Amino acid sequence: MRDVAVIGIGDTKFGELWDCSFREIGIQAGLMAVSDAGLSGEEIDALYVGNMSGGRYIEQEHIGAVIADYSGMARNHIAATRVEAAGASGGLAIRQGYMAIASGLHDIVVVGGAEKMTDVPDQMSMAIQASAEDQQWEAIFGATFTSLHAMIARRHMHEYGTTREQIAQVAVKNHKHGALNPKAQFQREISLETVLRSPPVAEPLGVFDCAPNSDGAAAVVLCAVEKAKKYTDSPIKITASAQASDTLALHHRVDICRFDASRIAATKAFKQAKIKPKDVDVAEMHDNFTISEILAIEDMGFFRKGEGGKATEEGQTAIGGKIAVNTSGGLKARGDPIGATGVAQVVEIVTQLRGEAGKRQVEGAEVGLAHNVGGAGGTVVVHVLEVI
Amino acid sequence: MRDVAVIGIGDTKFGELWDCSFREIGIQAGLMAVSDAGLSGEEIDALYVGNMSGGRYIEQEHIGAVIADYSGMARNHIAATRVEAAGASGGLAIRQGYMAIASGLHDIVVVGGAEKMTDVPDQMSMAIQASAEDQQWEAIFGATFTSLHAMIARRHMHEYGTTREQIAQVAVKNHKHGALNPKAQFQREISLETVLRSPPVAEPLGVFDCAPNSDGAAAVVLCAVEKAKKYTDSPIKITASAQASDTLALHHRVDICRFDASRIAATKAFKQAKIKPKDVDVAEMHDNFTISEILAIEDMGFFRKGEGGKATEEGQTAIGGKIAVNTSGGLKARGDPIGATGVAQVVEIVTQLRGEAGKRQVEGAEVGLAHNVGGAGGTVVVHVLEVI
Repeated sequence: MRDVAVIGIGDTKFGELWDCSFREIGIQAGLMAVSDAGLSGEEIDALYVGNMSGGRYIEQEHIGAVIADYSGMARNHIAATRVEAAGASGGLAIRQGYMAIASGLHDIVVVGGAEKMTDVPDQMSMAIQASAEDQQWEAIFGATFTSLHAMIARRHMHEYGTTREQIAQVAVKNHKHGALNPKAQFQREISLETVLRSPPVAEPLGVFDCAPNSDGAAAVVLCAVEKAKKYTDSPIKITASAQASDTLALHHRVDICRFDASRIAATKAFKQAKIKPKDVDVAEMHDNFTISEILAIEDMGFFRKGEGGKATEEGQTAIGGKIAVNTSGGLKARGDPIGATGVAQVVEIVTQLRGEAGKRQVEGAEVGLAHNVGGAGGTVVVHVLEVI
Repeated sequence: MRDVAVIGIGDTKFGELWDCSFREIGIQAGLMAVSDAGLSGEEIDALYVGNMSGGRYIEQEHIGAVIADYSGMARNHIAATRVEAAGASGGLAIRQGYMAIASGLHDIVVVGGAEKMTDVPDQMSMAIQASAEDQQWEAIFGATFTSLHAMIARRHMHEYGTTREQIAQVAVKNHKHGALNPKAQFQREISLETVLRSPPVAEPLGVFDCAPNSDGAAAVVLCAVEKAKKYTDSPIKITASAQASDTLALHHRVDICRFDASRIAATKAFKQAKIKPKDVDVAEMHDNFTISEILAIEDMGFFRKGEGGKATEEGQTAIGGKIAVNTSGGLKARGDPIGATGVAQVVEIVTQLRGEAGKRQVEGAEVGLAHNVGGAGGTVVVHVLEVI
């Protein structure tokens, strides 16, 4: 197994990008990453693309070939593969690229993630997102993602005394971070009151507890570490890539206050990277809902189970706190174009580890972690990245 | 890079399986393969699933986790990943599994492919299949897959003097083979007259020139060769795995009488396996249309460009001929549940190389090839398999 590094990154603005098509944003992010790495197209061995539901959002499957074609890489007949695992599509695409290089099969791989969600009506988008749940035993009975996470929130409040205010603080913090990210969908700080008084979606969760529908794309260039110095002075090494699954349906789980797939992927990742949770300086967590970030920071081992809400309230997860969580603004404020999200998380971690995060820079960040979730924890992929 | 072998195979009957759900057929094929390999579930390291359009056919994405969940593998939190490249989804899923083992990351990987196509109306299925084309420049103008392949057929007739009868002979042969396969969707021989007089779909292609809509699933168990003997006396080695892309749209190609992605993937595969086209005893070709098989046997180098029709007419591609093509019946007669097809091809090749193909056995078959296509040649993946 060879070591793998990120040598190039790119991402579009996230938001309602009505003037761009899916393929335009995909290629925009890809070209930024390739240009960032100083590559020529001929040097690229393979392409992986994370995308959840091109078939329903844009009536286009065969997404790997689409991006290969319109980026010009199909002229070189590059191997192009789409990977799908709902919200974890992007993270899993990175993992496939990582494996392709680690195996020695390829030297340089581009991994993109993209989704165009705002060209369909909101109700349609809700139905599409529900296809990440168990269709036969959850979605068909009307369970939306928000309602499933509302149940998780209620139970967490019941079990651990987590307060509504603590949950809401995740949104306040991530909007504060997003305000420092010029590519975030929401770049305005919000108050605790705003979250608490926002229209309920599935109580206790309101509008400001939910990540938005977004258009956007992100890309990274991966390279064997032994060749990375040819392209960049600051390669960022992927020191762990770990993946786990769980039942799709929440009702099949013993405990809905934790995602076992998160815990197992994290344990494997820390073992592979030979680090402890306390060694992580900066982390992107899959905060598709505010409560999700609280579960995640507990499941990663950054805080004890039940103490995530309190830690958030105390500012321990803000920039300048014990561990900076979702410096990009997270899914909540940066936006959540589903297939792009897992790749965008790694783009943010690399930006931080390179020391290029501007106003949201975490001083001295050397170890970063990205946590990407599909469905309500049915798939989780965790990557650890480190300054070489 | 480690060597990889197939140690277990399974497949459902292909056809209109109205009494089974998607997850039922997926799990049925997977359990057959695992049982064939004599594995216990705990020994499996990862799962890859090929599926084209779960989102639109069954309103379910997150397909990897679905199969992991309902097969019980999610209890072990197995890494489960869906791969999509339209008709090449199954072949690419095998390639990801191959890479995961070759890299040393995993020892044993299950690869499944599944599609449930007959629970939606035919017009809907046609629209879904068109999402493998270029949505913006082909599908939106009404180009169906049949019409694109009809243009290819017309051009091949014009360029090389290929006759309508030669093209139709592909269907006659594959139905003859399918009649020997108890799991084929169509198990009845048809005459040349039947094909020629079948209702036109897009001239010159008629109903009997087109693969059907099908439900079905197939699975293989892959294992590092060094550990394969523990499970089976007849491991079949994957001696090559190669992939290439091309433009999605036909109108972007220099020559529509060949698929460059097929030619390049084949060239790479023959180089990796250190064999020549003439060394192949048995091959599964992606005959979604009769003309596709003629292109494929030329693009693989089994016959010179322009001579595929004549070779078919002379019986050179039938069982007992120069090279046995589509002994399973191919997509045409065995059926074409899109995501399952690439995996089912490998199941057939392994069956032949094990000498377990019954009435359709190719005597002394030692080298097999599977050729799996996404869209009209936008993605191609070729695998070579050999008796160890």
